[in-house]
Amino acid sequence: MPTILGQNQYGKAENRVVKITRDGDTHHIKDLNVSVALSGELDEVHYSGSNANVLPTDTTKNTVFAFAKEHGIESAEAFGILLARHFVDSCAPIHRARIRIEEYSWERIATSDANSQFIGADEVQHSFVRKGQEIRTAQITYDGEGIQVLSGLKGLTVLNSTNSEFWGYIKDRYTTLPEDYDRILATEVASVWRHNVTGAEGERMPNWEKSYAQAKKNMLHAFAETYSLSLQQTLYQMGVRVINARPEIDEIRFSMPNKHHFKVDLAPFGMKNEAADGAVYYAADRPYGLIEATVLRDGAEALIPVDMTNL
Amino acid sequence: MPTILGQNQYGKAENRVVKITRDGDTHHIKDLNVSVALSGELDEVHYSGSNANVLPTDTTKNTVFAFAKEHGIESAEAFGILLARHFVDSCAPIHRARIRIEEYSWERIATSDANSQFIGADEVQHSFVRKGQEIRTAQITYDGEGIQVLSGLKGLTVLNSTNSEFWGYIKDRYTTLPEDYDRILATEVASVWRHNVTGAEGERMPNWEKSYAQAKKNMLHAFAETYSLSLQQTLYQMGVRVINARPEIDEIRFSMPNKHHFKVDLAPFGMKNEAADGAVYYAADRPYGLIEATVLRDGAEALIPVDMTNL
Amino acid sequence: MPTILGQNQYGKAENRVVKITRDGDTHHIKDLNVSVALSGELDEVHYSGSNANVLPTDTTKNTVFAFAKEHGIESAEAFGILLARHFVDSCAPIHRARIRIEEYSWERIATSDANSQFIGADEVQHSFVRKGQEIRTAQITYDGEGIQVLSGLKGLTVLNSTNSEFWGYIKDRYTTLPEDYDRILATEVASVWRHNVTGAEGERMPNWEKSYAQAKKNMLHAFAETYSLSLQQTLYQMGVRVINARPEIDEIRFSMPNKHHFKVDLAPFGMKNEAADGAVYYAADRPYGLIEATVLRDGAEALIPVDMTNL
Amino acid sequence: MPTILGQNQYGKAENRVVKITRDGDTHHIKDLNVSVALSGELDEVHYSGSNANVLPTDTTKNTVFAFAKEHGIESAEAFGILLARHFVDSCAPIHRARIRIEEYSWERIATSDANSQFIGADEVQHSFVRKGQEIRTAQITYDGEGIQVLSGLKGLTVLNSTNSEFWGYIKDRYTTLPEDYDRILATEVASVWRHNVTGAEGERMPNWEKSYAQAKKNMLHAFAETYSLSLQQTLYQMGVRVINARPEIDEIRFSMPNKHHFKVDLAPFGMKNEAADGAVYYAADRPYGLIEATVLRDGAEALIPVDMTNL
Repeated sequence: MPTILGQNQYGKAENRVVKITRDGDTHHIKDLNVSVALSGELDEVHYSGSNANVLPTDTTKNTVFAFAKEHGIESAEAFGILLARHFVDSCAPIHRARIRIEEYSWERIATSDANSQFIGADEVQHSFVRKGQEIRTAQITYDGEGIQVLSGLKGLTVLNSTNSEFWGYIKDRYTTLPEDYDRILATEVASVWRHNVTGAEGERMPNWEKSYAQAKKNMLHAFAETYSLSLQQTLYQMGVRVINARPEIDEIRFSMPNKHHFKVDLAPFGMKNEAADGAVYYAADRPYGLIEATVLRDGAEALIPVDMTNL
Repeated sequence: MPTILGQNQYGKAENRVVKITRDGDTHHIKDLNVSVALSGELDEVHYSGSNANVLPTDTTKNTVFAFAKEHGIESAEAFGILLARHFVDSCAPIHRARIRIEEYSWERIATSDANSQFIGADEVQHSFVRKGQEIRTAQITYDGEGIQVLSGLKGLTVLNSTNSEFWGYIKDRYTTLPEDYDRILATEVASVWRHNVTGAEGERMPNWEKSYAQAKKNMLHAFAETYSLSLQQTLYQMGVRVINARPEIDEIRFSMPNKHHFKVDLAPFGMKNEAADGAVYYAADRPYGLIEATVLRDGAEALIPVDMTNL
Repeated sequence: MPTILGQNQYGKAENRVVKITRDGDTHHIKDLNVSVALSGELDEVHYSGSNANVLPTDTTKNTVFAFAKEHGIESAEAFGILLARHFVDSCAPIHRARIRIEEYSWERIATSDANSQFIGADEVQHSFVRKGQEIRTAQITYDGEGIQVLSGLKGLTVLNSTNSEFWGYIKDRYTTLPEDYDRILATEVASVWRHNVTGAEGERMPNWEKSYAQAKKNMLHAFAETYSLSLQQTLYQMGVRVINARPEIDEIRFSMPNKHHFKVDLAPFGMKNEAADGAVYYAADRPYGLIEATVLRDGAEALIPVDMTNL
Repeated sequence: MPTILGQNQYGKAENRVVKITRDGDTHHIKDLNVSVALSGELDEVHYSGSNANVLPTDTTKNTVFAFAKEHGIESAEAFGILLARHFVDSCAPIHRARIRIEEYSWERIATSDANSQFIGADEVQHSFVRKGQEIRTAQITYDGEGIQVLSGLKGLTVLNSTNSEFWGYIKDRYTTLPEDYDRILATEVASVWRHNVTGAEGERMPNWEKSYAQAKKNMLHAFAETYSLSLQQTLYQMGVRVINARPEIDEIRFSMPNKHHFKVDLAPFGMKNEAADGAVYYAADRPYGLIEATVLRDGAEALIPVDMTNL
């Protein structure tokens, strides 16, 4: 046979699991999208169609829902670790499991003490509105020995309306861009970071919820506080800030489109449009600069895959 | 000629205009997507291709950007009124202008006083993160005499994890749904409401920003505080609350998909999954119930179009 | 009570029903997305939450699937008529049903007689590839007496690389657009047309499949063959052609974004970029001109709603 | 400094370039979305914000458009090779260029000889309708020495209405899926394949257009002609067929969601719904099985990255 099988994996993607926890009248919600990918002794299902080594994707789906009930969902990372270990440890032909999770955040609807006609209205603790800001992500991989935990976020759109310049670049035959000493800098942050945990017995895990909140906060602060000469410089400072602030994180990668805001030329209408006076901008869709880079704790190994987009 | 021209309109859609206002080092941002639709004496452009009565869509785009600089953007509604009046009043063949606006909200990045190495870091007032919760909408129509102002929102996803029941419905040959006395009620609210303004000279306009914030707040409170026997009942209470709280609003329409959260059947695994104990749900995509209705102040005319979706 | 209920409707949206018909080894496929909206005596479900007059949306879903088996799916229109009649005629509180359908087309995979190692391979008649060109639509409304049938399509993207001009338009203070005597004309056609059927007993229905194919074909021909001085002129010719060719169609509405293809300015690089020589264009996303109009058979009533977009 | 910079790249993404070629009255169209990513001596732009080694992303955009005019667009692959070589060979700090391209196909509108009132109508050769079936992709990487060329497609949705079974799989505590001996098999194919070209001087390149058409055709035939016991088996046969048929291709990877079509349970309505009689199916959205694998010519190296989705 002149062809052979290479890397392969399978599983159920996008299991939309919602877990409510009731603490008296106070409810809590976890809202996840869980994708399972399994690898192992799976040559025959490709070669002959024998499913003897195949745990059906439908079963992996059932497991996600059953585990949410049995174990609750403390955090995306902790839930992913449980699932990844389960598939490899309980199913002999499966040697590696990768769990990818998206998490959607909700905040409580702060009900009204002013609406006195609604007795007890201010005590409602089971009503939520989706935050909608960024999507939190996690990826847990387990190969029967160690685990790797990546956390991340996507869709976090930020904008500085000043303190950004762009000049001093290479000019070749095809360069027409004028230098700019006061521009808008805006991007939609996608980021993945790697925790230095190994899954060794007795290892103490980070507080995943706090770690995430702090990583996001540091990223936002660095974005706001960096006087930027290039989006790359801002990106790097965001990575530095996260790694300096969080000892549990060794590596972080960003994919940041430069969401161009072009100053509109109003000269034909006899009008000035200077940044210093508060300008009007056209928010462009495509094309856009796309800036991608990894920042590492000195000595750490680069393990996060390079591709965060298909573009 | 056996065919004739019916209703028609044209203009530039989706002008993505961002206006920064500088108040010293404190910046403000307005981020809109403005669509223009004009009607009038436009038969000939359809019949013969004569553009003699056509203000180019490119000009309507330029006008949006120039107006943002000349007049600023106080609110989506105020900006839309300016634009609608301009097109009809300044261009003889145009008899009617409809401006539709989407607005994207931003909040300030609360920078860090704790990062003492960044001198003055806590004073950054030009950094923003997109809120991402709902999209605010406005539609202003002007026909040379009166104006109509619709405000609205879309993409506001809410969920009650209890206080929702569904029973006592019609059972026919095709009914299999079991009654439920403790279910999740979740929806993605899209809503449009009509202000009782006319555009008459000297008329006092609402405070559009405050009106919007209060309409949203009342909607959320009613959602949270209604013990629900049907999504229709919740919808109606949301409308009642807005109209009672806001004298400037006479009519409100909602389009609310019932975002089904089905309790997962864990019995095959020997597990119970009761709402009262904190259940696990499967968040379904399609199909979904779609509930649509208008609520009116008694005596008000129904003027909001029925179709808010194509489904 | 100072508020009252206005127009309202409910039902299950986006039922994704696929029906396979087997004719020996030759299979046929119908792939629909069916949305149901019912109206009637539904005040109480809004006012008090009583579901006594409510046929559950879940039941409407079941009905869609059961009808696909019982009656087959001859065409989207015929299927929609069956469903609409059923809900109104079989459920007393329901006075009006509106069925909206999207249809996805498939074509057969033309298998290979050249692959002689696969015996009988060229006879495979159960393999399909989704066409992916346009989405076909239908809307059937029944109020217990008459029916209204709208057919349509969306997502049909067309382009003429010449025979399009734009000049002779109004120039005001905000006009900067240069006239163009040889431009690309491109649009993504969305269209809805109304059949002059009433649902009267014994009425002969159109051949829905043929009617659709011919409407699309005439639309495409008119687009290709019209020397265009404005997108409005092209739109009108498309409507005229459909109405002239199809006696069963009395009214047609189009929503056609002007998908701008801007000639790139290559002068800074010492290059010409003329349409006559075969130019390079930048395909823009936003903003875009949006042209909307109805064409009617003389004497026909305009019944298709104006809004085909929210922009 | 406790942090260091890892892999990084930048460039302009999603340049939407359309090139018309005129051959008398017969026009040809190429419609691409081109993304540029450059790497090299770029540490300083991250560390200090110095842009001394940065060719602006705006310049890379200009280059795409200028090259389309200067060189035409023979194929996505040939155009990408030109661009990749240019950036590395002409700009000293740039050591590696990766060009990713999406291509949208168009077909001619076959105009009407029957419409005799339109003289010459049947000769229109400048009118196109977008095919809309799959999106063609290409990725060209050049590091100053060799090139790597990947071709591919995405969004190709296929369905077999029989000749698919699924049984004989592992049953664990969480397995509830019944075996199925006659199911629908449907998927949306995404595939990337690698050509065994190196970019060596004098090397003869494949006919990229023909190679693509044949790869797609073989993939479709294998899908149709494989009696399937698992989606993995079908996937593998598709890879085998492409590699056997195309000597220029050494490696191919697929990402194929199992687009579940579940037979609807009509028993509650007293109806049977058997595949053999032509069944009614519910086309599910999420979750879905996701099957991914690489097929290699024996002896070839696996170089296509594993991740084709983020799920």
